[in-house]
Amino acid sequence: MQTDMKTPLLPSSDPDPSEPSGPGAPVISIMGSGDFSRSLSTRLVACGFRVVVGSREPRRVARGLFPAGVELLTQREAAERAEKVVFTAVYPEHYHTLVGLRGPLEGKVLVDVSNATGLNRGGQANAERLAELFPQSRVVKGFNTVSAWALQAGAHDGSRQVLICSDCSDSRSTVLQLARRLGFSPVDLGGLCASRDIEEAPLILFPSWGGPILTTFLLFLFFYGYLFLRNILLPYLDEGTNNFYELPLVTVNQTLPAVSLVTLALVYLPGLLAAVFQLGRGTKYKRFPDWLDRWLCRRKELGLMSFLCAVLHAVYSMCLTLRRAAGYNLLNAAYRQVRAGVENSWSEQMVWRSDLYLSCGILGFGVLTLLAITSLPSVGNALNWREFTFVQSGLGYAALTLSIMHALFFGWDFAFFPGAYPYYLPPVYLLALILPCIVLLGRTFLALPCLMFRLTKIRRGWESPRHRPPINQEPPEEDPPLHPGDV
Amino acid sequence: MQTDMKTPLLPSSDPDPSEPSGPGAPVISIMGSGDFSRSLSTRLVACGFRVVVGSREPRRVARGLFPAGVELLTQREAAERAEKVVFTAVYPEHYHTLVGLRGPLEGKVLVDVSNATGLNRGGQANAERLAELFPQSRVVKGFNTVSAWALQAGAHDGSRQVLICSDCSDSRSTVLQLARRLGFSPVDLGGLCASRDIEEAPLILFPSWGGPILTTFLLFLFFYGYLFLRNILLPYLDEGTNNFYELPLVTVNQTLPAVSLVTLALVYLPGLLAAVFQLGRGTKYKRFPDWLDRWLCRRKELGLMSFLCAVLHAVYSMCLTLRRAAGYNLLNAAYRQVRAGVENSWSEQMVWRSDLYLSCGILGFGVLTLLAITSLPSVGNALNWREFTFVQSGLGYAALTLSIMHALFFGWDFAFFPGAYPYYLPPVYLLALILPCIVLLGRTFLALPCLMFRLTKIRRGWESPRHRPPINQEPPEEDPPLHPGDV
Amino acid sequence: MQTDMKTPLLPSSDPDPSEPSGPGAPVISIMGSGDFSRSLSTRLVACGFRVVVGSREPRRVARGLFPAGVELLTQREAAERAEKVVFTAVYPEHYHTLVGLRGPLEGKVLVDVSNATGLNRGGQANAERLAELFPQSRVVKGFNTVSAWALQAGAHDGSRQVLICSDCSDSRSTVLQLARRLGFSPVDLGGLCASRDIEEAPLILFPSWGGPILTTFLLFLFFYGYLFLRNILLPYLDEGTNNFYELPLVTVNQTLPAVSLVTLALVYLPGLLAAVFQLGRGTKYKRFPDWLDRWLCRRKELGLMSFLCAVLHAVYSMCLTLRRAAGYNLLNAAYRQVRAGVENSWSEQMVWRSDLYLSCGILGFGVLTLLAITSLPSVGNALNWREFTFVQSGLGYAALTLSIMHALFFGWDFAFFPGAYPYYLPPVYLLALILPCIVLLGRTFLALPCLMFRLTKIRRGWESPRHRPPINQEPPEEDPPLHPGDV
Repeated sequence: MQTDMKTPLLPSSDPDPSEPSGPGAPVISIMGSGDFSRSLSTRLVACGFRVVVGSREPRRVARGLFPAGVELLTQREAAERAEKVVFTAVYPEHYHTLVGLRGPLEGKVLVDVSNATGLNRGGQANAERLAELFPQSRVVKGFNTVSAWALQAGAHDGSRQVLICSDCSDSRSTVLQLARRLGFSPVDLGGLCASRDIEEAPLILFPSWGGPILTTFLLFLFFYGYLFLRNILLPYLDEGTNNFYELPLVTVNQTLPAVSLVTLALVYLPGLLAAVFQLGRGTKYKRFPDWLDRWLCRRKELGLMSFLCAVLHAVYSMCLTLRRAAGYNLLNAAYRQVRAGVENSWSEQMVWRSDLYLSCGILGFGVLTLLAITSLPSVGNALNWREFTFVQSGLGYAALTLSIMHALFFGWDFAFFPGAYPYYLPPVYLLALILPCIVLLGRTFLALPCLMFRLTKIRRGWESPRHRPPINQEPPEEDPPLHPGDV
Repeated sequence: MQTDMKTPLLPSSDPDPSEPSGPGAPVISIMGSGDFSRSLSTRLVACGFRVVVGSREPRRVARGLFPAGVELLTQREAAERAEKVVFTAVYPEHYHTLVGLRGPLEGKVLVDVSNATGLNRGGQANAERLAELFPQSRVVKGFNTVSAWALQAGAHDGSRQVLICSDCSDSRSTVLQLARRLGFSPVDLGGLCASRDIEEAPLILFPSWGGPILTTFLLFLFFYGYLFLRNILLPYLDEGTNNFYELPLVTVNQTLPAVSLVTLALVYLPGLLAAVFQLGRGTKYKRFPDWLDRWLCRRKELGLMSFLCAVLHAVYSMCLTLRRAAGYNLLNAAYRQVRAGVENSWSEQMVWRSDLYLSCGILGFGVLTLLAITSLPSVGNALNWREFTFVQSGLGYAALTLSIMHALFFGWDFAFFPGAYPYYLPPVYLLALILPCIVLLGRTFLALPCLMFRLTKIRRGWESPRHRPPINQEPPEEDPPLHPGDV
Repeated sequence: MQTDMKTPLLPSSDPDPSEPSGPGAPVISIMGSGDFSRSLSTRLVACGFRVVVGSREPRRVARGLFPAGVELLTQREAAERAEKVVFTAVYPEHYHTLVGLRGPLEGKVLVDVSNATGLNRGGQANAERLAELFPQSRVVKGFNTVSAWALQAGAHDGSRQVLICSDCSDSRSTVLQLARRLGFSPVDLGGLCASRDIEEAPLILFPSWGGPILTTFLLFLFFYGYLFLRNILLPYLDEGTNNFYELPLVTVNQTLPAVSLVTLALVYLPGLLAAVFQLGRGTKYKRFPDWLDRWLCRRKELGLMSFLCAVLHAVYSMCLTLRRAAGYNLLNAAYRQVRAGVENSWSEQMVWRSDLYLSCGILGFGVLTLLAITSLPSVGNALNWREFTFVQSGLGYAALTLSIMHALFFGWDFAFFPGAYPYYLPPVYLLALILPCIVLLGRTFLALPCLMFRLTKIRRGWESPRHRPPINQEPPEEDPPLHPGDV
């Protein structure tokens, strides 16, 4: 095949024809001459297509905004020139103005690139309306998730995903291919009924973060409220002590570690529950309940929220001695010490306590930071799954253990004095320790050899006999663990 | 097409022939046997080309440094064997030694991969000189921006951009295709006159950082000088007070937040100016003045410089109590308090002030950190444009607001006492607040419904009537916002 | 070529046929129906192949776990249907159960995707055993390094490397192509004897980190032990002073900066040694000794370990004033000052010392942070080699210099008093300064014009006459520096 073609160095079947506007390249039309049209045409030309842009008033469009090789024509001319694919880069509210082009667009693939104007508006998707207006054309939804910027700059390091759907599978394939040719990773979402979702995709704000942020926020509210009640409001009502100055900083800094600790426990709880489910059911081939599935998928976000709280707690703590209040307290203590004539106020026990809880806190925070760094896409991608498991599970439990020790050393033996329970309310670090301790004990329990062995078997594909028809005598099959479903 | 070919699993038109040195693969020659030649030949062989390396003394070249399949021949033999493309991986100062090969190189594509020896040296580019020496060959500039390392390791996660230019469009296409085949993202820069720029590209150090770093540095100089004058030099000359010990740490820590705040304001000012330009002109299709365009393109770098100053300010502040001076001051204050017999020096107002400004500072710093994290390429790429806008604009203004509050709480009501104006010089935080407050007010002003509405219309492509010919009755066209030009 | 084909928009030679299960696509079989099989079939279908999964009991397999278009058949049927390639996604311990399929698998390519069950177990690799069991088939090892997750999600931003080996070069090529077609970066490791390494690859934990972590750990042990001896054990034995409370925090915080400083010196020492080797030998074309090569390859990891210690030192230091011990010391000092009647305990020298060493420390830490950020893959990839060199070499030596100054200012003139040498043991910062100072002096020495000039010549490819045969009159060749080997 390559021997009889002398001139071209590379086989002529190469997807990138040498002359962008060469006579052989397919013609693609774009209706509309806005930003998206400009960026799309730039990319199409760069990838070797001939591009015709159809404008209402081709003469009024600044020619210089389009790359060389793009033809600016009227919309009718552009529709006629298109070989197969026509992009409709026109606002959806003006689709009806294209109706006159039904003839030239007949049988062609119309790619709707519009976004939804709002979330959950219901009603017809733009692409569905376009399909109604052009029953003789084949409408494909797609490319709206790509920013004009990614189109122009090339997507080699950006988000390359292009969601595509259409009722005509031929046309869908054509657009899937086209997307690949332009350097994107197309995802086929099936029929045009998916277009509503595709149109709303660029409007959804951090979809996977909603639950974790809400959880963290509610935990914050609970602990902050509890501390406000226990340390500020009740003492004020009861004894008239004015501790309100603690609200902006001190109380926040007592709330943050509690939230961080509980959230960290929430990262590892679903994994334990999944293991319990698998052990109880004796198989891994039954789906988890939906809530557990969703929870398992949000562990990374929960972990980052826990890290965020830990960072803020660290910074707040390191700023504690900068506070005027800390200065006043020290001066007053010095005054009292001098007045009392105490030469040395050193308390060995308190010194050990403070050094130990600071050490555990710093080390736990350090481990948590390593975890957070590996959740950066570019770092995480460089790990193999064993390294990933080591970091997420091994280091994760190390961070949890160190954090629990941080809280325990902080608490010291104070929890055993009645003075720690004013108004019968336990100190907040005790509340915050409940869930983490349960998780840690649960994990230790699952590490018992008998349970561990059975779990490993199940995870490799073994099924308890009650799930197997009796004839099954054949061996289980290979199951390297899935990255994210890994417990 | 695939039915009549039984043996190969994959269609034979596949760009990667199964046998790297198979008889059908095109032969590419490389003149020179240095590091670059070795790396390039490794990559070419891996991508299915046959490679011939031409050396002055083929027998002296360590064969083991080249991948299997590469032929080491004399330069003349290599020139003759090349089917179409010859890389000249020889130092430019020795191009004249190749002149004897004019015959065998005639009609072939010479790819010049050399770098410039310095910036702004003027004179002829290496590629231009090569073109003069080989008038019968077709010289293409390219591949110099790629490191030998990226060549060898494969560029799948590295900087894949390859800048290419040539006066012969056919040869340019050939090399563009070749670059794509090797896994790079070639960029066509047109005629050979661009080769000077291409040759200098690898020498330019952080091109987009010059302006922002200079701006930050000048701001630093100004504020540092001002503080030196106001707090150290004038008190020394006037009263003989020796505050020089403040120079290495305290003064720097007063300068940094001022620089950070003003730089952060400079990130959001150009967006406001752009909006004002668009509102005033009634169209978005007129280009901004050059200075504004450049400024808009440097916002990310300015933001990171602001973040750098904020980080340093945070670290410096948290080290304040570690200083000997802080210890001495506290001891002396304790001495005075005991001597004066003041049992409790607590000042409720000062406590609130310090806790509030620390809180605002920490939160503003936290938000700024989130912003900085999303400017990491791998994180930013995972955001859709709505998330990007939310982070950059929403969180950005939140950080600016919190920083302004940090400064205002720090200032408290001290600005209203004459003592704050020694030598009639206002405190530095007042100076640093001017620009940020203007930006925040400007942003609030632009959020007025009437202006917002008009601006949104303009950004969607609407144009004020004075820009439109009267016949224009047709609808505006689709304009999804461009990522970076977004305000 | 494109003119006579009207219907398809894109040339039919496109690697992605429009219909995934179209009649023309090649059929690939997968033995086994576990997680890996599911993920692989998803990817194969997405890339346009027809997939047949062979299960022991096809009826028991949950159809919904496989993508549409996959046929679930018996293992025999699947083996027969395969056109050329058969994946064996079955646990290696059950390979013998496939022996009955020798007939239908004859002449086909068997891809072994299994992992090793442990490291350094010796014995036969799984793939070698498979090859023994199927002498008439052609066994290829590969795809085991890819996680099921990367297979399913598409590897566009993940680790795309696929290691492949086989004794049959034809089959190897087929699988190499297939891997590329699926979006991976295949690496050809030659014959089947490499399969043991490939099978163990996913089990190896951070292979490049072992040495640096061990080095850092040993340095930590040494300095911690030295400090324990000098500051705690000997004073206790000698005078009965109880300093044991310093163990968890204070001693750690004295150890960390010493480890960080020495490790940072170890980052730059091998570069100096390499330069000395090159100068001494007069050529860069002789290989360095193995230990130096390995050391040069571990500089990034050493640098990050140094950074980790620096971060911990910074956090520990900023927590110093939070300690109870710090509070007690201050109170006792206040008591003494009041008792002694000293109105002002200010010591100008101590104030300058503490401010200077804090400043140098903060700045050095800041520079080290910039270095660490550029070692993030996504940031480092965006740098050209000149920027990379500037950051790694320029900023690196700046960080080293600032760290040395930090230690020198911290030491002040205390090293010159006999009291600094209790039990004749020098203070730890003196020990920690030895290697960094040697490195810095060595670097300065190499920057002498005469040495610099010769070194630059050698790095550009020049060789000292004793390495050249006398006939060599020809010019040196182009050698752009290699990124990582750069000094």
